[in-house]
Amino acid sequence: MDKTTHHITACVVVIGNEILSGRTQDLNISYIGKCCDELGIRLMECRVIPDVPEAILATVDACRRVFDYVFTTGGIGPTHDDITTAVIARLFNRPIERNAAAVIAMQSYYGVDNLNEARLKMADIPVGAMLIDNPVSGAPGFQIENVFVLPGVPIIMQAMFEGITDRLIGGAPMLTGSVVTGLPESILADGLRELQNRYPDVAIGSYPFFRKGKLGVNIVMRTTRAATLTDATAAVILLIRNLEGEVIKMP
Amino acid sequence: MDKTTHHITACVVVIGNEILSGRTQDLNISYIGKCCDELGIRLMECRVIPDVPEAILATVDACRRVFDYVFTTGGIGPTHDDITTAVIARLFNRPIERNAAAVIAMQSYYGVDNLNEARLKMADIPVGAMLIDNPVSGAPGFQIENVFVLPGVPIIMQAMFEGITDRLIGGAPMLTGSVVTGLPESILADGLRELQNRYPDVAIGSYPFFRKGKLGVNIVMRTTRAATLTDATAAVILLIRNLEGEVIKMP
Repeated sequence: MDKTTHHITACVVVIGNEILSGRTQDLNISYIGKCCDELGIRLMECRVIPDVPEAILATVDACRRVFDYVFTTGGIGPTHDDITTAVIARLFNRPIERNAAAVIAMQSYYGVDNLNEARLKMADIPVGAMLIDNPVSGAPGFQIENVFVLPGVPIIMQAMFEGITDRLIGGAPMLTGSVVTGLPESILADGLRELQNRYPDVAIGSYPFFRKGKLGVNIVMRTTRAATLTDATAAVILLIRNLEGEVIKMP
Repeated sequence: MDKTTHHITACVVVIGNEILSGRTQDLNISYIGKCCDELGIRLMECRVIPDVPEAILATVDACRRVFDYVFTTGGIGPTHDDITTAVIARLFNRPIERNAAAVIAMQSYYGVDNLNEARLKMADIPVGAMLIDNPVSGAPGFQIENVFVLPGVPIIMQAMFEGITDRLIGGAPMLTGSVVTGLPESILADGLRELQNRYPDVAIGSYPFFRKGKLGVNIVMRTTRAATLTDATAAVILLIRNLEGEVIKMP
């Protein structure tokens, strides 16, 4: 990979016992990963942690110092296990206040008469935070410095992430191509290693899979350079054909 | 939660650019999470990291010092991007050798004549590591101290994980119950907070969801004590009925 440029980096912190217990399948990492690719941001790490204040505090604090952006998901609802907002306020040493703009947003979603105290808890935001609009269910997220606090429910998180993309400074979008073949990895290994050396700007990944009882390999190329991607993809296809393999899916 | 007992803890380290890019949906965290619950092991953290030697080295080293068990997934195949084995060997300062037992296991899977050099690379294991049998595709994983090195393909990883459960010392299995209702979280919040205080041994989680355009809440109770789980579940159902809500799914 190109080491001359500074890449903008990001980290996702998934907060929730339900992900660690396996009861709920996380879908937010893959969604944010795809968005980062499009934005030219390198998603460098994700951490899944429990609903434990010390874990949230230590993890977000460590990550915000290392990565350009930190996205947290989960723990900003109205119930006792929603502790993310309080912990982030503590992390940045800011009091929590009932945010007037958040109340207005929630009034227009729920209706003034349906805004009970539990719901209003979701309008309690650290002082000075920038709100993140929630077009799905009213209650906003927020941003402090490089930390973006988002909810855990995927369709709500996704709609809110859409709204922050113009706050994120990225770089050239990551372009990807893939070639699928039924050749085993072991036959491809030498050739792929040679291609990786020939195209240092392209990250070439080899991902075996089982489908309908047969092994296959998905060869994925990632780079910000369109012409290089075209060249590398052609070279991978040539490698497969030279090994008398079948290209199952063209990029 | 009970703070008088030392709980056995674990961490999953998912190694792979394809998870961070969102091209591949991770399924290993949820599988290992469920297994840990059954084994009475607390899965306390998961980290997803790229195929970068320094990231693997630093992450596994940090995690193995904090948690009783570390499970890595990904990066032990035959191609250039499979670097986990080499990095783990470096971490434990051990040379890599062609492991005779691994060669025999792979011979019986592939047949002696089909064991080319790329495949044999998967029999190169750090000296003194304990092999982890692969009943699906031959190439083994391995264990050094409290670090278990597993592949990324879910069905292979799962079959191999089955084979190590008798090496893992856990505790009382985590028991879970859940109650689903159409009541909004905001209506349930006060009552759930009171129940959490009444049952400190039970971790009560409230997970909103969208299904068929309607919001609902899944209330999940987790504890190692069967009688307490029964009591807490009954109390949650009573709470919902007192709020004139419908219990959509009984535990």
